[in-house]
Amino acid sequence: MTTALRPPPSLLIEPIVRMALLEDLGRAGDITSDLILPLGQLSIARIAARKGGVVAGLPVATLAFHLVDSSLSVRPEALDGDRVCPGATLLALEGPSRGLLTAERVALNFLGHLSGVATATRALVDAVTGTKARIVCTRKTTPGLRILEKYAVRCGGGFNHRFGLDDAVLIKDNHIAAAGSLKTALERAFAGIGHMVRIEVEVDTLDQLEEALSLGVDTILLDNMSPETLHDAVRIADGRATLEASGNVTLATVRAIAESGVDYISSGAITHSAPNFDLGLDF
Amino acid sequence: MTTALRPPPSLLIEPIVRMALLEDLGRAGDITSDLILPLGQLSIARIAARKGGVVAGLPVATLAFHLVDSSLSVRPEALDGDRVCPGATLLALEGPSRGLLTAERVALNFLGHLSGVATATRALVDAVTGTKARIVCTRKTTPGLRILEKYAVRCGGGFNHRFGLDDAVLIKDNHIAAAGSLKTALERAFAGIGHMVRIEVEVDTLDQLEEALSLGVDTILLDNMSPETLHDAVRIADGRATLEASGNVTLATVRAIAESGVDYISSGAITHSAPNFDLGLDF
Amino acid sequence: MTTALRPPPSLLIEPIVRMALLEDLGRAGDITSDLILPLGQLSIARIAARKGGVVAGLPVATLAFHLVDSSLSVRPEALDGDRVCPGATLLALEGPSRGLLTAERVALNFLGHLSGVATATRALVDAVTGTKARIVCTRKTTPGLRILEKYAVRCGGGFNHRFGLDDAVLIKDNHIAAAGSLKTALERAFAGIGHMVRIEVEVDTLDQLEEALSLGVDTILLDNMSPETLHDAVRIADGRATLEASGNVTLATVRAIAESGVDYISSGAITHSAPNFDLGLDF
Amino acid sequence: MTTALRPPPSLLIEPIVRMALLEDLGRAGDITSDLILPLGQLSIARIAARKGGVVAGLPVATLAFHLVDSSLSVRPEALDGDRVCPGATLLALEGPSRGLLTAERVALNFLGHLSGVATATRALVDAVTGTKARIVCTRKTTPGLRILEKYAVRCGGGFNHRFGLDDAVLIKDNHIAAAGSLKTALERAFAGIGHMVRIEVEVDTLDQLEEALSLGVDTILLDNMSPETLHDAVRIADGRATLEASGNVTLATVRAIAESGVDYISSGAITHSAPNFDLGLDF
Amino acid sequence: MTTALRPPPSLLIEPIVRMALLEDLGRAGDITSDLILPLGQLSIARIAARKGGVVAGLPVATLAFHLVDSSLSVRPEALDGDRVCPGATLLALEGPSRGLLTAERVALNFLGHLSGVATATRALVDAVTGTKARIVCTRKTTPGLRILEKYAVRCGGGFNHRFGLDDAVLIKDNHIAAAGSLKTALERAFAGIGHMVRIEVEVDTLDQLEEALSLGVDTILLDNMSPETLHDAVRIADGRATLEASGNVTLATVRAIAESGVDYISSGAITHSAPNFDLGLDF
Amino acid sequence: MTTALRPPPSLLIEPIVRMALLEDLGRAGDITSDLILPLGQLSIARIAARKGGVVAGLPVATLAFHLVDSSLSVRPEALDGDRVCPGATLLALEGPSRGLLTAERVALNFLGHLSGVATATRALVDAVTGTKARIVCTRKTTPGLRILEKYAVRCGGGFNHRFGLDDAVLIKDNHIAAAGSLKTALERAFAGIGHMVRIEVEVDTLDQLEEALSLGVDTILLDNMSPETLHDAVRIADGRATLEASGNVTLATVRAIAESGVDYISSGAITHSAPNFDLGLDF
Repeated sequence: MTTALRPPPSLLIEPIVRMALLEDLGRAGDITSDLILPLGQLSIARIAARKGGVVAGLPVATLAFHLVDSSLSVRPEALDGDRVCPGATLLALEGPSRGLLTAERVALNFLGHLSGVATATRALVDAVTGTKARIVCTRKTTPGLRILEKYAVRCGGGFNHRFGLDDAVLIKDNHIAAAGSLKTALERAFAGIGHMVRIEVEVDTLDQLEEALSLGVDTILLDNMSPETLHDAVRIADGRATLEASGNVTLATVRAIAESGVDYISSGAITHSAPNFDLGLDF
Repeated sequence: MTTALRPPPSLLIEPIVRMALLEDLGRAGDITSDLILPLGQLSIARIAARKGGVVAGLPVATLAFHLVDSSLSVRPEALDGDRVCPGATLLALEGPSRGLLTAERVALNFLGHLSGVATATRALVDAVTGTKARIVCTRKTTPGLRILEKYAVRCGGGFNHRFGLDDAVLIKDNHIAAAGSLKTALERAFAGIGHMVRIEVEVDTLDQLEEALSLGVDTILLDNMSPETLHDAVRIADGRATLEASGNVTLATVRAIAESGVDYISSGAITHSAPNFDLGLDF
Repeated sequence: MTTALRPPPSLLIEPIVRMALLEDLGRAGDITSDLILPLGQLSIARIAARKGGVVAGLPVATLAFHLVDSSLSVRPEALDGDRVCPGATLLALEGPSRGLLTAERVALNFLGHLSGVATATRALVDAVTGTKARIVCTRKTTPGLRILEKYAVRCGGGFNHRFGLDDAVLIKDNHIAAAGSLKTALERAFAGIGHMVRIEVEVDTLDQLEEALSLGVDTILLDNMSPETLHDAVRIADGRATLEASGNVTLATVRAIAESGVDYISSGAITHSAPNFDLGLDF
Repeated sequence: MTTALRPPPSLLIEPIVRMALLEDLGRAGDITSDLILPLGQLSIARIAARKGGVVAGLPVATLAFHLVDSSLSVRPEALDGDRVCPGATLLALEGPSRGLLTAERVALNFLGHLSGVATATRALVDAVTGTKARIVCTRKTTPGLRILEKYAVRCGGGFNHRFGLDDAVLIKDNHIAAAGSLKTALERAFAGIGHMVRIEVEVDTLDQLEEALSLGVDTILLDNMSPETLHDAVRIADGRATLEASGNVTLATVRAIAESGVDYISSGAITHSAPNFDLGLDF
Repeated sequence: MTTALRPPPSLLIEPIVRMALLEDLGRAGDITSDLILPLGQLSIARIAARKGGVVAGLPVATLAFHLVDSSLSVRPEALDGDRVCPGATLLALEGPSRGLLTAERVALNFLGHLSGVATATRALVDAVTGTKARIVCTRKTTPGLRILEKYAVRCGGGFNHRFGLDDAVLIKDNHIAAAGSLKTALERAFAGIGHMVRIEVEVDTLDQLEEALSLGVDTILLDNMSPETLHDAVRIADGRATLEASGNVTLATVRAIAESGVDYISSGAITHSAPNFDLGLDF
Repeated sequence: MTTALRPPPSLLIEPIVRMALLEDLGRAGDITSDLILPLGQLSIARIAARKGGVVAGLPVATLAFHLVDSSLSVRPEALDGDRVCPGATLLALEGPSRGLLTAERVALNFLGHLSGVATATRALVDAVTGTKARIVCTRKTTPGLRILEKYAVRCGGGFNHRFGLDDAVLIKDNHIAAAGSLKTALERAFAGIGHMVRIEVEVDTLDQLEEALSLGVDTILLDNMSPETLHDAVRIADGRATLEASGNVTLATVRAIAESGVDYISSGAITHSAPNFDLGLDF
């Protein structure tokens, strides 16, 4: 595991897991288990992959079990970021049956969703192997799960773009139109922002790219350009700026985009449309 | 719009939308717009579908805009549950540019996700037209968004299964094993539960089905049975119980499952793997 | 203890106990003990019943002590649902005096209130012994304490009706009037609701009862009927529906109501008007 | 209305009412009304007393209706603290039927509970008319509702004791025992506390009373003394201290206690055991 | 350590520390340490005073470290309320480097701020040594930190005035003007308030003082009077009331004020303008 | 007002103001005003500066008044960022006296604290006039108030450094030591972080500066260097990196530091030790 794969701090994750458990427990908890399971019954179980892919969210799932019953033993048999085969055990579980059954669905919901994001990310990352392009996510995330999805992207070998509207400046066409010109927009940004905040400018055409470069912009988002145009953009920039391509990024197109020579390729689909990773809890 | 399509009460939705906005605003808010947009600039914009599908979440998106700036005018041009064509306007927006830009992403994230769920649900519902089968969702939902996804399922013409572990009893194989027999499990459930809670039993075989019927169970989940076996199950039950089929439900298989004569078909994919519905905000 | 007496999950109880402690601690905590008690002083104490009754809330009281001082030893000498005699010890306590004194009032407030509810419930349950009637609670609960009061009702041998407006349908006269007829109201309910939600209809007269039965309603609330009328209702229903009687249920009337043959008798008084159970903490 | 009857600030009440509504709405809200009521249907209704008593909680009930639907018109026809006759209208309501039905139970639960507390308080207050004794509540309140119950006590003509462990010092036998003597306990209290905090000492015997008086204590709680002993206590104190009687305070005993000449009589029952005040919402 | 120096209960402190940590962790946590520090690296460190002063907040800082990493060993080498010399070690720390670095700033921010308040308080307390005057704080505190600042004042040898608007009555000129006279204002207060709440009256002139005394007021705030006038006030009161002086209290003036013979001297500056106490964490 | 002076979004500010009000209202609210002020009494008042300085926090104070009583009219007569003279009116207030008195202290606490920060910042900014140096704040802020203090710094003409541990990388000596070398630390950072996050390296000596420059670092923090050394650093860097000076920054030293030619000068004192700005509310 590389250091970049450290999960977000527990102080940030716990409220999300707690909320998900409360959502499932409702007002009376797991009434089926309460009515039927004998007190003190113990079980051994495991969470296993039903398909191959990249795992993400094991500490989140573990926390779900522990918040329901701190006496449960939850032993990971894989690490976030691992590629696993169908049938691979991810978590070995042991302890009170009631706790296992009560936390099962929430744990699987997190693990399935985040591993889905990691797996979708990894597919793009693998597709651009050998190029210098890095895959990055966007702000097109599932409401409430952004920090976990951003982490899952890293587990899949991707990188993170902004976490929100506040941690970097991204100047789009509306901002430029409102300011009157890119030059004015940039002056306003430089006048108000300190040295620890990055400024990226979105351009739709090569003319806009040249204007941005001439104004000293060092991070540029090339929106919805064809691989050919991206190729030209890379040639024009000639190392003067970090270039990010976005728009129409799919498994089918990403290689061609990467081969244009851009530095980053951003995809909303890896977070907002990644299919659930298939998992099961077996007793 | 049928009455069943009423969205969850504002008291329930607002905390979710507020949390999503805070997630995006971070600690400094929309710094790009703050730096560049002139105070008081107004815009007209619209949210439009980029593809065809079923809309869900318009009141949620509206709330996102209003929580950011209560002076924004947000006029729906479609209703949740409507089928829309590519290009259709869903919301007409007017007011301060800053508010529009700041709330845009969160509003689209909700609308894209929920319309995705509704569209995926509608595809299954359409596929079983003419049969008596109803499509239902499961507890395989995105953590934190269950009540909204359940609503989106209704917008797509589907129905809701349990909202959580607490509002109905669902006896699975682990419960039966722990109790020693289905009979004992049912006795324990009947002994402890009142008349307002439904009890459903999950069975894997026709033998188990017959046992459940003989014990008077009136709601039965047929898990992972082939259409042929389901057909036999319907014949055996002969109206004595409501039958729900689950497992391996896809657009390709759902019609055959429905034609077996079951009453309900449940799908996790409509909530946990529905691709985002493509939308855009145009100024 | 039967399995039905399992308390709500800690995840649900803890926020309520924490809130009650914060309410009592205010902004400076237990200033009297802080000023006067020597650091590190230990005490042995017990919570004892001052009267006879049924106990409920021991895990809640235990949590109150542990949230104030996790080093306190709290040993239950009775179980929720037990009938106890005056003088019986319920909890044996040992540890820092400050923690004991600081948590005492909140622990007793919970235990006294919930045992009061359990004791009031048990009085009705005992009064209908030998009949088939079960005592159920209502939504007439103390704001903020519903899940605990519902649990206390179970400790007293009662059963739970709906936990809220969302987990079952209860069609009352206003709904019928708004829909135009019971038939229309039922059609709307069936059209929008899945198979896991029960539908109950409230009737005031035997004519309405017959209408409901003829429409296939299988759960009927008989509101404010005399024991004689209830007797007729049971005869008319003849096993076609589960019958619940409500209105004017007191210790004096409940036996006669039960002897009518109804299945359930609901009481708001067991939750909203149960006198506190008398308890004390003795050092 | 006297100025003392001002309800707690909205900032304090609103979270409590919101929590109570969420408790009742659960995850899907008022599904019965959503399924059956036509959109936009309006109703006129009123909340009326079913018995005579003292009203408390009208602003709380009003807030419940407004939080559910801000378009509801809620017009009070009585004031908190008013004595009302059976049948008296307390609130006149008008607006969307759905909002009325959805908020009804929570509004009534608050109003019934708080008016019950006010009515029980008023009964004690009336019983001591003509004496100088004031009725005060204790910390024996319902968890989560203390500020509302304290307000209801004021509506019933009573006064408030401490709101929690932090806003006054109350030295009990355990504190004295831990300190070694009342003298030491008082010295510690005086050494650590400022001039804005009152100090009360609880005594069980007249000897303890004399000791407290000799040490300059100006507020003394006489615990569990007979009316005769209280009479002696008043004579001994001779105006040197404010005297509060507690223990065995009922409607039957309170007059005799008051006639002893004590200044305050405290009762836990007015908050923890007050029966619900009977109310109904009529359409 | 005197008993008065017990910190507020953990139940009150923890939410404040947690909020401060979340404020610093943002959405991704300590990314620098996550990226660079090897997993499992351990460190030994200490928090040391850079200047002399009075320490306050050690349990708060300790909690910050433990909330970030419960495996950190945090050993206090001083007690809240201690005077320390430059270079003195306050906390000895040992454990995972990442936890130490992540919690460092928040721990120091609390410790520096609260020790600053304690040190500023102690300076005033020392300046009035030998007089009977006690130094008290006001409600002029930093939003969100009142209970901690009030505690820090006690650590500095000061006393606490009201914690808020609710725990004592303070009648100012606006109240008197609104009531028409001090007499009316007092009557209204006495009529509505119980025996556990203190009433203080603010006066600007000796005439007002005499009026207050003649009406039996026993706690009086002398606002903005010169030492000479305060001297006269003490003579006039002659022990009939506790006297508090406020206004223009600085290190230069406080001794003269105290020598007037007043009982309390209140200062807003010790909470709202205390400079940070200089501390560092050394590895 | 420049665009950079836009306050944080209401969604972020409101919870802070609400918390501060709850802290002051406690459990019973403004009991003095409730007891004494006649219902419906109206007042006119203004908040005025007692000294000269720079104002910050007017929208925060306004929100405090509106959260207490939405009917209050609050009219700003200055803008955040304005320099004001002693006696200048900042807010003109009109409406119910009770609301004015209840919100007064919280409004003044925010306004005094934030204007204090702005004023302290402005003093440094003015002192470096004519140089290119910008004044920036640090993470040495008051717990819970960081976003407001960062805003106040901007109102005073300063700029913001990181908002937390998550929005930029700052490599300090401990990180370098743990990684073995700056080179390794940088490699790890570059390997795991995307293009939207800035990386700054802290150096203590000119040798370290040269190493950082040689490794391509473009943002460097020069810690605790004398003006002379800073001058050398600027010469060495020769425009290859943005330079920030920190350590021993006071009004007396800041000009000399700025004249070294550094780009940024960071100060913790402007947030953690700014004296309160003196304000008053006059009726």
